Amino acid sequence: MRMKILVTGFDPFGADKINPAIEAVKRLPAIIAGATIIKLEIPTKFNVSAQVVHTAIAAEHPDYVLNIGQAGGRFALTPERVAINLDDGRIADNAGYQPVDHTIHADGQTAYFTQLPIKAMVREIREAGIPSAVSNTAGTYVCNHIMYQVQYMRDKEFPDIKAGFMHIPFLPDQVVNRPGTPSLSLADDVKGITAAIAAIVARDGQGDIKTIEGTIA
Amino acid sequence: MRMKILVTGFDPFGADKINPAIEAVKRLPAIIAGATIIKLEIPTKFNVSAQVVHTAIAAEHPDYVLNIGQAGGRFALTPERVAINLDDGRIADNAGYQPVDHTIHADGQTAYFTQLPIKAMVREIREAGIPSAVSNTAGTYVCNHIMYQVQYMRDKEFPDIKAGFMHIPFLPDQVVNRPGTPSLSLADDVKGITAAIAAIVARDGQGDIKTIEGTIA
Amino acid sequence: MRMKILVTGFDPFGADKINPAIEAVKRLPAIIAGATIIKLEIPTKFNVSAQVVHTAIAAEHPDYVLNIGQAGGRFALTPERVAINLDDGRIADNAGYQPVDHTIHADGQTAYFTQLPIKAMVREIREAGIPSAVSNTAGTYVCNHIMYQVQYMRDKEFPDIKAGFMHIPFLPDQVVNRPGTPSLSLADDVKGITAAIAAIVARDGQGDIKTIEGTIA
Amino acid sequence: MRMKILVTGFDPFGADKINPAIEAVKRLPAIIAGATIIKLEIPTKFNVSAQVVHTAIAAEHPDYVLNIGQAGGRFALTPERVAINLDDGRIADNAGYQPVDHTIHADGQTAYFTQLPIKAMVREIREAGIPSAVSNTAGTYVCNHIMYQVQYMRDKEFPDIKAGFMHIPFLPDQVVNRPGTPSLSLADDVKGITAAIAAIVARDGQGDIKTIEGTIA
Repeated sequence: MRMKILVTGFDPFGADKINPAIEAVKRLPAIIAGATIIKLEIPTKFNVSAQVVHTAIAAEHPDYVLNIGQAGGRFALTPERVAINLDDGRIADNAGYQPVDHTIHADGQTAYFTQLPIKAMVREIREAGIPSAVSNTAGTYVCNHIMYQVQYMRDKEFPDIKAGFMHIPFLPDQVVNRPGTPSLSLADDVKGITAAIAAIVARDGQGDIKTIEGTIA
Repeated sequence: MRMKILVTGFDPFGADKINPAIEAVKRLPAIIAGATIIKLEIPTKFNVSAQVVHTAIAAEHPDYVLNIGQAGGRFALTPERVAINLDDGRIADNAGYQPVDHTIHADGQTAYFTQLPIKAMVREIREAGIPSAVSNTAGTYVCNHIMYQVQYMRDKEFPDIKAGFMHIPFLPDQVVNRPGTPSLSLADDVKGITAAIAAIVARDGQGDIKTIEGTIA
Repeated sequence: MRMKILVTGFDPFGADKINPAIEAVKRLPAIIAGATIIKLEIPTKFNVSAQVVHTAIAAEHPDYVLNIGQAGGRFALTPERVAINLDDGRIADNAGYQPVDHTIHADGQTAYFTQLPIKAMVREIREAGIPSAVSNTAGTYVCNHIMYQVQYMRDKEFPDIKAGFMHIPFLPDQVVNRPGTPSLSLADDVKGITAAIAAIVARDGQGDIKTIEGTIA
Repeated sequence: MRMKILVTGFDPFGADKINPAIEAVKRLPAIIAGATIIKLEIPTKFNVSAQVVHTAIAAEHPDYVLNIGQAGGRFALTPERVAINLDDGRIADNAGYQPVDHTIHADGQTAYFTQLPIKAMVREIREAGIPSAVSNTAGTYVCNHIMYQVQYMRDKEFPDIKAGFMHIPFLPDQVVNRPGTPSLSLADDVKGITAAIAAIVARDGQGDIKTIEGTIA
């Protein structure tokens, strides 16, 4: 049976009218490396986002979940290593909610490591000619929240899924009025996410590769 | 009785002949805001560093432990929020050891949050005229390692200590041959660390302040 | 009669196997905003580059000359304001020649301002959704050299041409092994250069627009 | 007879209440490497600044003029190579005047190169442990203006002076609310400017050294 991968993208938030995450997800092929891609737009809202993903997991029983989010200011596609049990909003979410130093789940782990082969993803994205790096923080906003929530669902309810998150930079259009800020095109986002998903499929059942991608600080 | 704070600094590593962490620690006052400062140099070695700190904690019974380390490329003094259960060396440590994706303790938590009032520390450092920000990743090298190890000691053996980590930038002298890299002077490091420790003392028993210091990504 | 615009791009230099300048120039339309585009590859060599452009100007009698070059590390398409009478190579050129503090022409002006409407170009590039900014230095390598040389030709021999230079960032593929370095896709380069040329045509005979694009330092 | 060096610093402008330029100048020794230092505060105003410097040159007959200014966002002390005949204000000056694309002097050269030994200055500053680099643009605001004006005075009226400009970064206190912006301490500014002046004295009559300090773009 075909592998199923649920890929989500957030809608626009803050001052931006567009979010490269959902735009790139919409443009992914229906099938990547033989796996069926299920696409899902999720709202940039702390609580609702998790409910929407939960419903999709319950309905679709995907093998993998890959959440995609915008990381303004980053230079590269960055698969995330870890999600932490904390909401700490720099700005309010799209529901007007701005938690400060809130624990997400009192009975959840302090953090969860991803099950995705992030180093293999980084390698494949680079081989596609797109900059990529392992990230060790998904921030403290809705992106970290959804990554944590999906891991929590895995911990408590769906032990068979493997899940993770990848951040992508601003689009060129978003940095026209943000001098000195890096960007990446939508076409390159699609190419890079496709390569990352191909790496997930290729490494299925084998764990990650052991390459030097650590960070001093 | 006087509060006791153990403050550690790493020795030089990689291409550098100096480490601002131990240099700044050496220059701290003996007493800050009424608390006794115990200074300790520790080696930039994954395993030995933790043993050295363990010995000092066992001997001194400090109320707080603050580990200081160099974060080349950062612009500000950055108290760390969380340590993760992972060693992933970009370079070998001073013992020639370079773990890749190693779990630090199989029976440790995935991550530990600091007990230090990081937002109060950031506020006090800024009020001293030094740039500061909360960081959500201590990297995957010896700095994260020691932060994690001290938390593990707290979890298993010394439940009464409160502990955490702060990264500091390169010194100006270290960036002379690294164009486009920020730095901070040793005098400002000392001023900022002193302010951070004063914040720790001032908030003792009250937890952290609730300011907006979250990170989107 | 149709306006003629000579657009040049340099070949690869230094450690790179590709130069976005010539790649983008090759992909420009044959006609932009009614003007005929004459494309020319030029070598990244201090002396030969000027001879090649001189030959093309003498043969084609273009109304405008726009030289395009790679500026690794820049975030945006940057029309240059001024060329200076100086060669000061950080690295050797493709002929192995590395001048240090050489005057280009003893009888040339200390610098020449471009005749291109750089602020109108910046505005049009941004309206195409691509980041852009006026630059006040073309460096001291072959890019500044060719910009200066074409101005010198204008000063001494071809008073009717209007000329200028635009720098473009690295391609994504070029930054895969240069972490923390911005890039722009070839498609966006082509879109941005096309918009810049449309601005040149639209402002022909009217000079530049008066927008706030100055630089404090 | 002792060599005389006129060193000027601008007063605060824009959103800042302090300008490291005048603060550093005030703290310079009275004599550096045997040369008498004459210190002068000048207003951040396009027109008045030049009158104030002109008066001081006429009164003091210095051998050298070194103007110091703040370059927010730079990482290093940057001696300037060239001043251009253009005022293009991103913001209004302290008199509320904001020229856009104005020629400074219709009978002045397009640009003037400094007479200061900028590469020797860079070398000496680095040897003092402070980051430094040659800059090829002084911007288009009051800093470039005063550098150009002093060169114009030299061209037309005071042929014996040698003159130039150096930019210095923000102070740490100025970047507390500007995350991701580099800074340098006032003590390091003073140390670096002192080293630069020592280099000026040491190279007097010999011109600059020939080191590799060019910029690709």
